[in-house]
Amino acid sequence: MKISYPLILVNFKTYAEATGEKAVKLAKTAEGVSNKTGVCIAVAVQPTDIYRVALQCSIPVFAQHIDPQPQGAFTGHVTAEAIKEAGAVGTLLNHSEMRLRVDVIDEAIKRAKSVDLVTCVCANNAEVSKAVAALNPSMVAVEPPELIGTGVSVSTAKPEDVLRTVEAVKAVNPALPVLCGAGITTGSDVRAALKLGTVGVLVASGVVKAKNPEEVLLDLASACLKQA
Amino acid sequence: MKISYPLILVNFKTYAEATGEKAVKLAKTAEGVSNKTGVCIAVAVQPTDIYRVALQCSIPVFAQHIDPQPQGAFTGHVTAEAIKEAGAVGTLLNHSEMRLRVDVIDEAIKRAKSVDLVTCVCANNAEVSKAVAALNPSMVAVEPPELIGTGVSVSTAKPEDVLRTVEAVKAVNPALPVLCGAGITTGSDVRAALKLGTVGVLVASGVVKAKNPEEVLLDLASACLKQA
Amino acid sequence: MKISYPLILVNFKTYAEATGEKAVKLAKTAEGVSNKTGVCIAVAVQPTDIYRVALQCSIPVFAQHIDPQPQGAFTGHVTAEAIKEAGAVGTLLNHSEMRLRVDVIDEAIKRAKSVDLVTCVCANNAEVSKAVAALNPSMVAVEPPELIGTGVSVSTAKPEDVLRTVEAVKAVNPALPVLCGAGITTGSDVRAALKLGTVGVLVASGVVKAKNPEEVLLDLASACLKQA
Amino acid sequence: MKISYPLILVNFKTYAEATGEKAVKLAKTAEGVSNKTGVCIAVAVQPTDIYRVALQCSIPVFAQHIDPQPQGAFTGHVTAEAIKEAGAVGTLLNHSEMRLRVDVIDEAIKRAKSVDLVTCVCANNAEVSKAVAALNPSMVAVEPPELIGTGVSVSTAKPEDVLRTVEAVKAVNPALPVLCGAGITTGSDVRAALKLGTVGVLVASGVVKAKNPEEVLLDLASACLKQA
Repeated sequence: MKISYPLILVNFKTYAEATGEKAVKLAKTAEGVSNKTGVCIAVAVQPTDIYRVALQCSIPVFAQHIDPQPQGAFTGHVTAEAIKEAGAVGTLLNHSEMRLRVDVIDEAIKRAKSVDLVTCVCANNAEVSKAVAALNPSMVAVEPPELIGTGVSVSTAKPEDVLRTVEAVKAVNPALPVLCGAGITTGSDVRAALKLGTVGVLVASGVVKAKNPEEVLLDLASACLKQA
Repeated sequence: MKISYPLILVNFKTYAEATGEKAVKLAKTAEGVSNKTGVCIAVAVQPTDIYRVALQCSIPVFAQHIDPQPQGAFTGHVTAEAIKEAGAVGTLLNHSEMRLRVDVIDEAIKRAKSVDLVTCVCANNAEVSKAVAALNPSMVAVEPPELIGTGVSVSTAKPEDVLRTVEAVKAVNPALPVLCGAGITTGSDVRAALKLGTVGVLVASGVVKAKNPEEVLLDLASACLKQA
Repeated sequence: MKISYPLILVNFKTYAEATGEKAVKLAKTAEGVSNKTGVCIAVAVQPTDIYRVALQCSIPVFAQHIDPQPQGAFTGHVTAEAIKEAGAVGTLLNHSEMRLRVDVIDEAIKRAKSVDLVTCVCANNAEVSKAVAALNPSMVAVEPPELIGTGVSVSTAKPEDVLRTVEAVKAVNPALPVLCGAGITTGSDVRAALKLGTVGVLVASGVVKAKNPEEVLLDLASACLKQA
Repeated sequence: MKISYPLILVNFKTYAEATGEKAVKLAKTAEGVSNKTGVCIAVAVQPTDIYRVALQCSIPVFAQHIDPQPQGAFTGHVTAEAIKEAGAVGTLLNHSEMRLRVDVIDEAIKRAKSVDLVTCVCANNAEVSKAVAALNPSMVAVEPPELIGTGVSVSTAKPEDVLRTVEAVKAVNPALPVLCGAGITTGSDVRAALKLGTVGVLVASGVVKAKNPEEVLLDLASACLKQA
């Protein structure tokens, strides 16, 4: 399951609409849109759902978080090895709803790499994006927390924040892909994001809570196509 | 999958020997011993393994931890609903390796109850055992952290701590089952634990890291039989 | 500086109006009211202000929090010994804005006792109040978080919650003093609190942000007198 | 109280030998050595000791930590304003014994700057040093945790780690001063550190637990002179 850009990364969060069997169903919908459009759509699911989603769907499956702890005498932690074994190809880290210590992000990225997992590290602003870029993740996603879940997209409401983030990350590592997220719900949000120098979007409620997730995903994916 | 006492609760932790397919295999071994002896053996597995273990084994499956967050806009959290949907019947809480805020334990117990999940709340000493007993979990497990993983069992090395814990918990709620753990590896450790007023044990490396887990589980289970 | 009941415990929080020289001034106001009425008024100040407040005022000074770490190789922690040396007679623990792990509360209470410091452990509801009561603090203060800072007092808006808390705490330790807090601003709030079985109140913005803190403190203290 | 380089920054931690009156005495010793040699020596004291140390000593006083919370309804937090008002000129952040979330470091640096406080952000390795450098602190201090308190100095045992850190930080911000710490006890440790491109050292037990702290400080300061 290779990642390609432009990328639409759908965070299932702990939404009831994206848990258990419903997670599998939504991931299959994403798979269908991905197959139809050729645009890479990945899903970040709850740890309890990685196995069954990865087993039944041929799209990249991410965890929403891993802990820096290795395999061994740790209880309640989610290891890099465990999500890999369950079928994940990568993980989100430091999401706005699961902020991490800077040394923990460093360690988690290193552990993920050691088992060939991709990491998408989230950040709340340009400064923090630059900081986490220095830790050599696979990609960085900037999400202004005040826009998350609002339907007001970062790429149209705060284009200068996205631009500053892309510049800040490139100053540290010119090759590092940058995504943006928060409030993304339409194809034009995606187009705006790509124009600002990002290579994709992180989206959650805009898809998961949509009346017709397939329709929304098709709209988002089409925007990637036109851009490409 | 009903819990009955005496109970042997095996914590798989994040051990490589108890992850993914190996978690399923070890759980099947536990199921075999449980079927042979009639003693209730439950397994607390990583969140990534709940689904496949529960699907393939007919013994009670626990999570190792849940978060107090409800379903909704939360990322990287493990909800009561998610582990239930994946097939768990209960969860550990506040394990020595995943200590929690007191209000979080209270909230997590309430959320677990709301979806009919059993809770086994761990504590490091008699005072904390009494405190968590006041929060009305399904059971309390006392584990002196300094003995965890040592092979020196709490029930033989610190019998007075176990006795004090049983008394402290009963003072708050006479009907609340008490387990003990830390260093449990043999049937005589279990017998000692049951004589002290507990109704079972929490065990981890003693089983998971054993050369022959089946043999160890049979020894532990036999001790429950003789006691009964 | 002995504590006596009924007790008015004023939490200065990190309010600008109660920092540095202003903390000393407000503590002197409290001292004046205490001297005039004979009612015990204690102040919980920021760690940076303990020394100068304790040096200049003859009322009991509390810290707002201590860490469980002992003296030694720890950086940025507030030890029991440090606040004692600075002049504090006790500390709040587990305030709604500084929630703690249950084992940390246990350890912090033990460390406070070891240097003869009083502990007032906060809790958000009756269950958690009962739990922390089992840890043998000097007193318990129940504060429903949703009322903190509202001016709607717990004792008039949620009398049944206060009653249930007093009962729950007494079930564990009949001699343990119970305070209540959240929204307390007037003498009648205090009278209601005392009628419900508490022996005092925890108050913050109602005093600190008042136009005339002396007037408010006099009103609160008078309510204690009439009750006595 | 201006900071100048080379800088010797003495972390008092929560050592009994550096608490309360003993903190004042040790700070006066540091002041004496600084006056005698002309080398800048700063002390990072517990929050309870900032006021009295700053009042009685004419050397730069740091806090060991601040929280990102602003003044207002927060309990038990240490604000930038509170340490400033107590007499501090700066603060450590993210010390090995008080690791912080990356967004919290960003916010704490911004809050410190807003009241003209200096920030020295600690990091455990070159990658994390580079990351925190991106957040624009006043200085960065690299301390491999495994050497802290050992008496084996980072600058002699791991010179390549210090070199890599200096390079990594300079790649992000060429003007940013870098300190190193862990195991520093002698003048030759300091000389080695300065040769590697740092502009000072972070030291704790080497001074605080020394039989003769003045002698040690004189040795450390002399090394700065020869270097200068």
